[in-house]
This record gives sequence, structure tokens and C-alpha cells, in this order.
Amino acid sequence: MTSESVQSLIDQLEAEAAMDRPVEATPEIGIIMGSDSDLDVMAGSESGRPGAFDVLTEELGFEEQTDYETAPEARFTFETFVVSAHRTPELMYTYAETAEDRGLDVIIAGAGGKSADLPNMTASIAYPLPVIGVPVQEKSLPSVIGMPQGAPIVAVDAGKSFNAALSAVQILARQHPELQERLLAYHEGLQQGVGEVSRDLHERGTPGFRDT
Amino acid sequence: MTSESVQSLIDQLEAEAAMDRPVEATPEIGIIMGSDSDLDVMAGSESGRPGAFDVLTEELGFEEQTDYETAPEARFTFETFVVSAHRTPELMYTYAETAEDRGLDVIIAGAGGKSADLPNMTASIAYPLPVIGVPVQEKSLPSVIGMPQGAPIVAVDAGKSFNAALSAVQILARQHPELQERLLAYHEGLQQGVGEVSRDLHERGTPGFRDT
Amino acid sequence: MTSESVQSLIDQLEAEAAMDRPVEATPEIGIIMGSDSDLDVMAGSESGRPGAFDVLTEELGFEEQTDYETAPEARFTFETFVVSAHRTPELMYTYAETAEDRGLDVIIAGAGGKSADLPNMTASIAYPLPVIGVPVQEKSLPSVIGMPQGAPIVAVDAGKSFNAALSAVQILARQHPELQERLLAYHEGLQQGVGEVSRDLHERGTPGFRDT
Amino acid sequence: MTSESVQSLIDQLEAEAAMDRPVEATPEIGIIMGSDSDLDVMAGSESGRPGAFDVLTEELGFEEQTDYETAPEARFTFETFVVSAHRTPELMYTYAETAEDRGLDVIIAGAGGKSADLPNMTASIAYPLPVIGVPVQEKSLPSVIGMPQGAPIVAVDAGKSFNAALSAVQILARQHPELQERLLAYHEGLQQGVGEVSRDLHERGTPGFRDT
Amino acid sequence: MTSESVQSLIDQLEAEAAMDRPVEATPEIGIIMGSDSDLDVMAGSESGRPGAFDVLTEELGFEEQTDYETAPEARFTFETFVVSAHRTPELMYTYAETAEDRGLDVIIAGAGGKSADLPNMTASIAYPLPVIGVPVQEKSLPSVIGMPQGAPIVAVDAGKSFNAALSAVQILARQHPELQERLLAYHEGLQQGVGEVSRDLHERGTPGFRDT
Amino acid sequence: MTSESVQSLIDQLEAEAAMDRPVEATPEIGIIMGSDSDLDVMAGSESGRPGAFDVLTEELGFEEQTDYETAPEARFTFETFVVSAHRTPELMYTYAETAEDRGLDVIIAGAGGKSADLPNMTASIAYPLPVIGVPVQEKSLPSVIGMPQGAPIVAVDAGKSFNAALSAVQILARQHPELQERLLAYHEGLQQGVGEVSRDLHERGTPGFRDT
Amino acid sequence: MTSESVQSLIDQLEAEAAMDRPVEATPEIGIIMGSDSDLDVMAGSESGRPGAFDVLTEELGFEEQTDYETAPEARFTFETFVVSAHRTPELMYTYAETAEDRGLDVIIAGAGGKSADLPNMTASIAYPLPVIGVPVQEKSLPSVIGMPQGAPIVAVDAGKSFNAALSAVQILARQHPELQERLLAYHEGLQQGVGEVSRDLHERGTPGFRDT
Amino acid sequence: MTSESVQSLIDQLEAEAAMDRPVEATPEIGIIMGSDSDLDVMAGSESGRPGAFDVLTEELGFEEQTDYETAPEARFTFETFVVSAHRTPELMYTYAETAEDRGLDVIIAGAGGKSADLPNMTASIAYPLPVIGVPVQEKSLPSVIGMPQGAPIVAVDAGKSFNAALSAVQILARQHPELQERLLAYHEGLQQGVGEVSRDLHERGTPGFRDT
Repeated sequence: MTSESVQSLIDQLEAEAAMDRPVEATPEIGIIMGSDSDLDVMAGSESGRPGAFDVLTEELGFEEQTDYETAPEARFTFETFVVSAHRTPELMYTYAETAEDRGLDVIIAGAGGKSADLPNMTASIAYPLPVIGVPVQEKSLPSVIGMPQGAPIVAVDAGKSFNAALSAVQILARQHPELQERLLAYHEGLQQGVGEVSRDLHERGTPGFRDT
Repeated sequence: MTSESVQSLIDQLEAEAAMDRPVEATPEIGIIMGSDSDLDVMAGSESGRPGAFDVLTEELGFEEQTDYETAPEARFTFETFVVSAHRTPELMYTYAETAEDRGLDVIIAGAGGKSADLPNMTASIAYPLPVIGVPVQEKSLPSVIGMPQGAPIVAVDAGKSFNAALSAVQILARQHPELQERLLAYHEGLQQGVGEVSRDLHERGTPGFRDT
Repeated sequence: MTSESVQSLIDQLEAEAAMDRPVEATPEIGIIMGSDSDLDVMAGSESGRPGAFDVLTEELGFEEQTDYETAPEARFTFETFVVSAHRTPELMYTYAETAEDRGLDVIIAGAGGKSADLPNMTASIAYPLPVIGVPVQEKSLPSVIGMPQGAPIVAVDAGKSFNAALSAVQILARQHPELQERLLAYHEGLQQGVGEVSRDLHERGTPGFRDT
Repeated sequence: MTSESVQSLIDQLEAEAAMDRPVEATPEIGIIMGSDSDLDVMAGSESGRPGAFDVLTEELGFEEQTDYETAPEARFTFETFVVSAHRTPELMYTYAETAEDRGLDVIIAGAGGKSADLPNMTASIAYPLPVIGVPVQEKSLPSVIGMPQGAPIVAVDAGKSFNAALSAVQILARQHPELQERLLAYHEGLQQGVGEVSRDLHERGTPGFRDT
Repeated sequence: MTSESVQSLIDQLEAEAAMDRPVEATPEIGIIMGSDSDLDVMAGSESGRPGAFDVLTEELGFEEQTDYETAPEARFTFETFVVSAHRTPELMYTYAETAEDRGLDVIIAGAGGKSADLPNMTASIAYPLPVIGVPVQEKSLPSVIGMPQGAPIVAVDAGKSFNAALSAVQILARQHPELQERLLAYHEGLQQGVGEVSRDLHERGTPGFRDT
Repeated sequence: MTSESVQSLIDQLEAEAAMDRPVEATPEIGIIMGSDSDLDVMAGSESGRPGAFDVLTEELGFEEQTDYETAPEARFTFETFVVSAHRTPELMYTYAETAEDRGLDVIIAGAGGKSADLPNMTASIAYPLPVIGVPVQEKSLPSVIGMPQGAPIVAVDAGKSFNAALSAVQILARQHPELQERLLAYHEGLQQGVGEVSRDLHERGTPGFRDT
Repeated sequence: MTSESVQSLIDQLEAEAAMDRPVEATPEIGIIMGSDSDLDVMAGSESGRPGAFDVLTEELGFEEQTDYETAPEARFTFETFVVSAHRTPELMYTYAETAEDRGLDVIIAGAGGKSADLPNMTASIAYPLPVIGVPVQEKSLPSVIGMPQGAPIVAVDAGKSFNAALSAVQILARQHPELQERLLAYHEGLQQGVGEVSRDLHERGTPGFRDT
Repeated sequence: MTSESVQSLIDQLEAEAAMDRPVEATPEIGIIMGSDSDLDVMAGSESGRPGAFDVLTEELGFEEQTDYETAPEARFTFETFVVSAHRTPELMYTYAETAEDRGLDVIIAGAGGKSADLPNMTASIAYPLPVIGVPVQEKSLPSVIGMPQGAPIVAVDAGKSFNAALSAVQILARQHPELQERLLAYHEGLQQGVGEVSRDLHERGTPGFRDT
């Protein structure tokens, strides 16, 4: 009953898992989502809120790896897939089961709706690889975070794939001092902005600040 | 106090129940809703989310039967009525009571608001005919699903008449292998789409995928 | 990473699926739950609320089948398993995938917590076999019912495995008139009780009724 | 499919409706509830919160009428029935339809659970007789109060059959000045108690008040 | 601290209470609301949902009385005021305290926000005159309905001043058979519409119905 | 309709307001609650959580004044009354209206239930005297805090009369340096306790700490 | 890791705290918010709801002080800063710790999101200076108000910085009779408006009022 | 205003941070909680649900380090402190700021109540060290998880310090293969238990299983 397109992805993932590629050539982070309609939340929206793709590529020096056998230049990379727990359970099973062998260090898994099973099931199958769940909608939060004792997942707030990517890199940074540096640099820029806007508001006063 | 238009529907339903028509000539599924303002949710919206009408006619080979005495060509059919629990309780009572005799195998009943009594009352009166309740709004869900012990109903998620129709056909498919086949064919198409979009996103990468 | 006890269950389920036993000798209903701590809700509590086991065995003439190869005397039977989505995903996968070949007609799947994934994942994998989800706790309801379009499940209210069993038999009754009869007989008894208590309360008056 | 005990109640209600008894001899208020397990909330609990029965008999001079043909001595009376919307829909229908002809002026209808349909359906069928809905549990409130436009019901807070009885008598008091007097007398007593406890607390001080 | 405009209203209400006008010349229903921004909900919106004003004037033959000393021609009338519990507590106090002496039989009181105190306070002060509370927003419902034991109010669903007006007339109709007639006539029209749309949808079928 | 006990309190409050007593001899803080059943929350429970009475008398050197004409020795005092918005609206009105003239600087008003009107109405009538609302139950919070624009109240968390008393004294401390000192002394004691328990837990370790 | 812009604000606040300026020359009220995106809620929106800035400057005679060393002409002033608990914790710490020495009498602190920590942390550090928390969004309310025993904060309703400013001035008015006068004058204007619109609606009637 | 006990802890933490101890001698995981009343949730309750202490010491071979200068024998250790965000903000600040220098790799921070600020503030100050937030109560979850963009935290479900410890070790296991082994061994035991109970329930049948 598995469709051809799904079966070919399953076969490919299993083949890649068997390749035993060096860790430098494989993606560190796997980003998966239940539907391509989740892409604006999971990657970041062009006209709206930034997301995991944005912070990884613009702030932290990652590149997206689109071909498992040909790594991009950047030392740290991530990959992106659509994996549906309810429509393609077999693909989900294979993705999670092969994740460690394919060289991933952490998975960011996002799903919407009230039955947001993808992050949980992925965490259960890929265990003990760390999985960071992203509830794509507010109503997805209980389903993502409510795992039973013995089946760990960590979650970020609804819609905040941006923070999930920061958290994923915090995990990687325990081993990679250059990522620690990049996280600090990003943060200093963030603070700098707050300090500037605060001085601006204070010194111009509310009406003056608004006129800017 | 019953109005003329309602009384004539009641009389007609009772007449049809007495006709003893062959099962091939009667609708298998009865779709009822509390108001015609529920039609976009219950049938599917032309500009929005597809619904029960759409999946039955486009994916599963059903036709809508609009005249009880003249069946359409398709072997499997459904009918559609507006039945208001609070404004036309007598019509609701008659519809549910005559359902089995009119040849229905399963009823899909949708209602909105916080007092979504139509699915429950229909399930209580038509018992033991299976009734699938569709909460037309999120706030209708507790009222639809909260039946007491001994008074069974099954429900789908708010607004998902599409899935209610699939579930209704799953029930019918226990007896009709051709429906089993159609359900599988529909599902394979669904999977095929997920697999294609997943490969697309992965191989083009996030920005490339968006440019398509 | 699969433990021995789980692997032996998986092997057994697959062996049974290959046996091609006659439908009269296999269970019609499979009852699964995420943990044995769900048993009071899913089967019925000895000191509390009755459940699926109680209504099936006491009201509807079913027997529990505990050995796949040796059917009990009763024509209609059910079986019971613990299957954890998050702790034994492989067992869940196998149970759902072999369900139809093992002769099941409908699955009743219950799970507690906020991430009640077992009913949903089972429905996705066992599709198009009908699955009735039982949220073991009130907080499990959103997760159980919230399936996306194209991935059907039907659910009963939190904690009401009793009604789930009635609904399962309503589905079976479309093909088995003797079950239809049993459902009607059960219901008449239920009504009889309400009528008696109503007359009692009315005729004795509130204080008299309480003294009984 | 209607059980004998229910049918005999239906027959009796219809017979009473045809009797055309003088209004002085019939109950003014009908109290109905979905189950006898609602009695503590609807009548008042012996060990807990007082309810409709208590305020009517102890504060407002009503008596409970337990035999339609033999009125108690008191000028104002009420009657009590168990009527289940989901288990005895026909009884509910008949009770509501005959209410006005049986001489009732107002109905107090209580139901528990999330699908508390009894007050709503009774209000729809007994219309334009006023119906005061009592949600027996907090979770019953949305279902009781959420009626659509054109189908009126009024409701009190969850569990407060005591206040529902006061409201019912407020309606009756528009026509019966003696009830107006009783309502005022009850209220003065209530105020008197508050005034006394306030002075007590104030003058003894917090520790002194507690020692009483 | 009371402003001039408020004091002049207070003086006027007290003067009217002292006039002892015949009941035929005074409004039966008083409609009050916390702010003129509640008018669309309480009276009915020109472009949106109809409300109390609409059903009273268009369906039930009431007229709005705008001058206490000069009654309109219609036998049954209502009046409308803005009364703010939190900004004009004294006006609220006076309105409620003089209501019975000014000839009102029932008050419809609407308020928005989470602290919707106007209906409750009015019910407490005007007691035992019946007060129907209208929560102007969904979030106002708990505050309106949650009165303590001994302090009765009845409420309708959020935003449904339309139904509050029907309920008010149901109360008046206990004494006025002509209002009973009008309520029945309104209801028959409502039913007639449902019956017609149901037949239409059924006989044209879903696509045909939509084309109309 | 006002009962004798309430009227005598009203008369007394008005008499006290006319006395023009020196500020040193009048209570700074007025504590009112809707019912004496709120006393455990508002004053502090002997067996449970401490409250306003406890922190004022044990930590901040206040005494309870129980006779308006005879002040206790302590420079700072408070008084306590039961005032019901829904059962004694006139008493509430008078208490709030005379508060400033009776020498109060701040009122702590607590109420339970979903219609917790006492704090709001008191704040509206006593304005511009500061009123600190205490929701006696979690469900009272929305009603207490939800005041409209222009009608200020400040609130503490549900059940936390202890913190309300601290906040009241923070307001008084703007004028009274000795209260500022007492607040700091209380806080240092609080910190000292946290520091000690932290060291204890850390140095004994979890099992050792538990054995203490 | 502290950025330059933040460090310079910290240095400045500490320098100002050491200046020992006369109270007439320092702001009485400090308004802080977690982000400049909160400005519309905290100050008031030009096109929407008025806020703290509006009521302080337009109704109560305050001026915004934008330079600590050069006070505006008005006797009573406030200042405005952006301070982020999560992005600039050190700035928050310094602002709260220097508040009293910088001459502030009360702080109004607003934050959005579900983790609205700024008001709470500020109240904890600036203690015993009174802090009024403003939840910028409805979902920020629990986080703002839920402080543990011993750590006081007072809060206003979500989004109501307007009322927070009134409450702040109520606190200041205990010491400054001219502020008491301004609060009363503001309130009388508010009442005057309600009285006028009430008379208007009543005398023109609903349709006439709408035509205005 | 800092108490002596708190100041001595602050001094000690700063001294330890300056010691530059080898990573083998310092704790990998720091467990902090807002109050010692959180200990049952954060460590595990002797009579109730197991927690972080239990899984670390009993399943994963960790020891609790109670003296910074004297490491226990086990290679992997954790330490435990009480740190209150609202009562000891300075201690919280120091703990978070010195964490990395004191050799911690990950912090597990738990807090109860609706204003559960400890995990968030710790994550903000200790950044980029990973912090896993544990909401001690269900109502603490929104406050713990709701961090704004740019301020990352990851959270587990309410009360599940057990899973937080597993997640912390999943992070450590990226660098320490022996921890990866222990995580897998723990998991296999967990699965083994589920498989055994499932077979037991299935083969004995429901009543037989209960008799065990």
C-alpha cells in the first residue's frame, strides 16, 4: 500500500544509512515537518516571522544539504524533509530509524493540528538521538510535549522553530567551540539592538520615538 | 405548531420508510446538518476546505440521491437534508426513526454552536444505526462527543466532514470489497503526493522549493 | 534495540497473520491500550465505571480470545493487548499492519496523557480498518480526535470504552443481524431502568425516594 | 423499541394532558433531570448544598405533588421526574409536549455531562413555556446555554438548582403577589444573616470570631 | 462626585417611580447595557446579527418607549438605557431600585468584558423582578452567570439578546395570551423556513442548491 | 427591603464617617470579603496557607481595630468586615462611599465565585481610593481583574491575600518610612530561609536532606 | 557578553542613582516594557486604544522626562524604557535595583507572550517599591499575576496600561492632594459622557440614536 | 538587602567558578528548583512518581555531588540547589552566570506556579549553556515554554523531571559513548516490561490478569 514516491525515499534513506559517510560530510541537523504547509513556520516566512532556516543560514553559518552524497562547503549543515506521521507512517519510521546512521546529531521535528504525533513518534524511534519538537500551532503544544515517563522529548513554544534551531546548536556547541562563538556573537547583536532602541525611546520620548 | 413545510417532509419520510425499497436503490449514507449555513463545512467549501460531498463524489465513486424513488446510476449513494434539533425537533425525530427503514446504513450528522444536539439526539433515536457526529465548530466538539454511558456516538474532529465520509465508507467497506479497494486507491494517491513534495523540498532546498 | 519480549510478540503476530484462519475463529474486535494502567478505563473497573470488557461479555455475548489458535465457543470474540506507541513503536506498527490479516474487523485503541498517539497511529497504519479511539483521560481527547484530512479516526468521549464497544458492535451489526438484536435488547433494558426510577421518584416524591 | 416502563409513563402523561384539570390542582413547576444521580444537585443534598426542593419547600411554601390527580394542600406545587434525552428520547418528547396542557407554568430541567441536551430539547419542544436550564456540572454549562437564535432557553450557573427555583418563582410572582411577598421575606432573612455575621467578625476581630 | 448628566437621569428615574402610572402606559421590558458600544449586540446590528430590538419590533409587535410620560400606541413596549456599573454605579443603583415602581416587568441587562457586573448587580438590587443577563462577549459569560446561592439571575448565551427578548416575552406571556400567540406565530415562520431550505437542498442536491 | 442588621451597620458607617477622627486613630487598611466562608483565604487559615491577617499582625506590626472609636495601641491598624455585593448591595455601597471619610488609605477586597463583583464595585465607588482585589478562587480572577478602561483596580493572584497585604503596605510605605523598614526586614528573613534550605539540600544531598 | 549599548545604559542608570537629585526633579513613575513592539499597548495606540502615556499627559497633567538631569516643567513626570528580561537580564536587574535611588515611586512594567517575566522580576528586585504589572496580551496574564507568597506584585487586566497609570496615580495621590483632585476631575468627565449618551439613546430611541 | 545565607552561597559559587577544576571533577548536570516544596517533583517522590534523581542514580550511573571540591567516584555527576527567582534573584543570577565556569554542561531548572520564571531567567543568563525547563505544575507550562524569539529554552511536560534527566543525558551522550550505551540499556529494560505485561494480559485474559 506504500506509494512509489514514498518507497523510493525509504530506499534512499536506507541506502544512505549504509554508506558510512564521514561526519563532516553529513548534515548535523535534520529538519522534518508533517506537511509543506508547515514550511513558513518551520523555515521562516518570507513576509512574516523568521524560523529555523533563517537563523541557521543567516546567523550561525550553516548551509542546507540537498544531496546526501555531495556536502556543501560549510562545516555545519542541515537537511529538510516532509514526513507525515499519519499519511506516511512508514517513511516516518524509516527516517527516525536511520537518523543516527545517516550522521544526524539532532532532529527538529514540527507538526500542526491537535494530533501532532510526528515529533513524539520520531523521538521514540530515533531515541536516544535528541529530538526537539516544534508545535506548529498553539493547539499542537499539548500533543507535542505530553510524552509519558521514559519516552523523552524536549519542546519549544508553538511556532518557534527559530528558537528550536538555536537550541539544536546549543547542543552541538558542547562539542564544537566555533558554534559556541557564533551563538555568543548572535546574542550580542540581539542585545545591542535592544539597548539602542531603549535609549532611543527614552531620549526622544514616546512621541519623538514614534515619529522616527 | 408544526409548520406546513416541515409536516410535508415528515409525511414524505414516513411514506418512504413504508416503501420497502431494495437496498441497491436507497442511499447508504444520510448527511444531515442543523442549518444550511453548515453546508460549507459538511459538504466542502468551493473556495476552502473539501468535505464529505467532495470525497464521496470525487474520490470514492458515490452519487448524491435527490429523489428517494429514483436512484442514480452509481451503486453507492448518499442523501442530504437540513434538520434542526432546536427548531424542528419533530423532523429530527422522524428522520432518525425512519432511517433504518429507509435503507440508510450510516448517518453523518453535523451541528454547530455550543449546544450541538443534532448528532447526539439522532444517534439516540436511530440507534443501533451508526451515527458519525461532525462538530461544525471547535466549540461544538464537547457537546457532540460527550454522550453518557449506554448512548453511543462516534465523532470526528471539528469541521472534518471529509474524514467523517471516509469513516462512513470504512464501515460500509466491511461488507463491500469494492469500497475497500477505493479507499486504498485514494490513500495511495495521498501518499504519492506527500512523497513527491518531500523529495522536492529536500532536493531543491528550502529557497528552491519556494521558487517553484 | 527491540527487547526480547517485544520481538517475540511481533514474531507471533506476523505468524498469526500468515495462518489464514477462518473468520469465525478469529476475534472480531481488537482492544489495545498504551499501558496496563489504562485497564480500568479500557476494560471497566471492578469498583468503578464499567467498560468495554463488561458490556461485551455481560450484555452482548462476546468472549475474550486469549489464544489465537484456540477460539472460545462464542461466535463473537475480542482480544486484548498492551501496545505502547512511545515505548514499543515497532510492536504498534506490527499490530496495526497485521490486524486485517489476523481477522480483526474493528480496533478499539485507548491511550492516556496529552500525547495519546496510539489510536491515531494505529488508525493510520491499519487503514482502512475502522479504529475507534478512546481517550483514557479528558486531556487525551484533543490528541486522539485531531487527525488531519485524509487520515480518518472516530472517537468516543474520554474514558468511555463502554460506548466504544457498543459502537464497535454497531459496525459489526451491519453484517450480523444477531448482534443487531442484542444491541436492541440491551437498550430496552436500559430504558426500562430509566422508566422505573422515574416513576419511583415521581410517585414517592423526593424525600420518599431517598429513603428507599 | 420503547420499554414498558417508559411507555406507561408516556401514556400517563398524555392522559393527564387530556384531563383539563383546574390550574389550582396542577403543579406550577416541573423539575426534570437526566438521571437520578443528578438528584443531589437538582433537589439539594442532605449533607451538602441545598437545592430546588429545599428552597421551594422550606422557604417558599411549595409542596411536591406526587399524584397528578390528587393535589396537596398547598396552593403552589411542583413535580419531579427523571427524563433522559439520550436514553428515553420519546419520554422527553412527550413530557415537553404535554407540559402546558398538564398545567405547568415553568420547567426546571437539569442535565450533566458535556452533552447536556435535556434542557435544550425540552425548551425547544415545550416552547413557548419558559424553561430554566440547570447545568449539573461545570462542563455542562456550554451545552445548556448555547442555543441558536430563535430557540430560547435561560440558564443558571452550574449546580445552582436553588437559584433556578428562585428564578422560577420570580416568574410566577408576576401573577401571584403572595409569591412576591415570600420572595421578599426569604431575601430579608438572607440579608439579616449577612449583617449579623459582618458585625460579629468586625467587633470580635478575626481571632475572636474564629473562637466562636 | 456624581456628574450633572448622571444626576439628572437619577432624578428623573426617581420622579417617574413616584408617578404611579397605569401599567398599560409603562414599558414592560427595560433594556440596559454597560456602554453604547454594546448596542449592536443588544439591539441587533444593521449589517450583522439581529438582536432584542429587532425581534421585539419586527416579530412580536412591541414599540420602543422613549418618553416615560407619553406611551406609544402599542400595548407592549420596552425602553433602552446605557447604565455603567463601574463608571456610574449610582445610576445603576437607582435604575434597579426604581424598576418595579416604574412599571417594568422584566429587565434585559447586557455587559461586556470579563467583569460584566451590570446584569448581576441589577438582578441583586431589582430583586425579585426577573433579570435576564446577556453576556455581550463570550468572555463575559462566567461573570454574568456565576451568581451565588440566594442571588438569582438567568442568562442567555453570549451575544444572544435576540433570545433574551424571546425569553422576556415568554415570561410576560404567562399573563398575556396575545403574546403567547405572537410567540407561536414567530416560531411557525421559523420552522417553515427550515422545512423549505431542507427540501430545497435535498431535491436540488448540493451543487444545485448552491447555484441558486 | 433592607434588613435590620444591615441597616444598623449602614447607619454606623455613616456616623463614623461624620466623626472626623484623627488619622492616627483610624484603620489604614480595610479588609472586606463577600462571605465569612472566605475568611480562611482572606485572613489566613489556621491549618493552611497564611493570609493578610497573618502577615499584617505577625510580620508588619499591625493590629486589628474592632471598635472605630477606640483605636488599639499600634500606630498602624486594619479592620475586617463581611460585605456581600449580591446579597447586601446597599451595605457595599455605603462601605465604599464612606471609606475615605472613615480614614482608610487602601481597601483589600476579596470575593469568590465566577461573579466576583465585590472588589470591582468597591473600587468603582470608593475611587480614587486604591483597592486591591483578591480573587478568592482561581475562577474569580477574570471577574476581579477585567475592569473597563477608566475604572481602575489592581489585583493579586487567586487566594493570595498575604501578598495583597504586602502590596497594601508597600503603598502606605511611600509615606511611612517605618513601614518601609518593616517590609525590608520581612524580606530579609524570607531570603535567609531560602539560602539556608538551599545550602542544606546541596550539602546533604537529596536523600540526606529528606532524612532531616 | 553584555553589548556596548546595554552596558552604557547600565552605567548611566547607576550614575543617576548616585546623583541624589531632589524628588521634584526626578520622575515619579517609570514605565518599562519588554520590547518596543509593546509600545502601542503600553503608551496607547495612535489609531486604537489609549494607554498610560495618553491618560498621564492628557488627563492628569504629567510630562514625560527624557533627560534625567533636566526635568520638564510639570511637577509630576514619568520616564519610558525598553527593558527585556530575557534578552537583557542585566539591564533589567540594574533598572530595578536603582529605581528607588533614582527617585521613582512606582513602576509600571509591561510584557507580552506567555513568559512575561519582566514585571515579576522587576517587582522582586525593586521591592519594596510598588510595581504594577501590565500583561501586554491576554496570554501574558497568568505569568504576570502568579507570583508566589512573599513576592508581591499587583496587576491590571491585559492590555490596560491606561488603568495601570490611573492606579499608579491613585498611589501617588495618597501624598499629593492635587493628584487626588485631577483623578476626580477625570472621573467626573467620564461619568458626564455616560450620562449624556444614556439620555441620548433613551430619548431618541435605538434607530434615532443610530442615525446621529 | 541580600541576607547572609544567600550572600555566602553567592560568594561560594563565584569562588568555585574561579577554581578552574578539571571537567571530570565537576558535576555535568545542575538541578535547581524554586523551592524545596518542588523536591518531590524534581527529584522523584518516595511514595509517588520517580524523578530526575531516581533515573540518574538508579538507571544511568550518576552520583550526586554535594561538595564542589570533593567529587564522588562516579565519572558523571549532578548537583542540586534551591534557587528562587522571586525571593533570591541575586542567587539565581549568580548561579546562571557561573554555571559554565563551574563546569556544568546542562541545567535542569524546575519551577511551579503560574509565574514560573526560574527556568526562563536561568536560560537567558546561562546562555548558551542548554537549559531544560521543568514546569512543576500543569499551570507552570505556559510560563516555562513561552520564551520570545532569540531567547531559547527547551521544556519537558509538567512534572516530568524524569524525562528531563533523560534528555540531559541524551545531550551529554553526543560526546560520551558510555552514556549512549546506558540510555539504550535503560530503554531495552523499559520495552521488556511492556512486552511482558502485554503477553500476560493477552494470554491470561482480562479477569485472569487482574487476579495476578
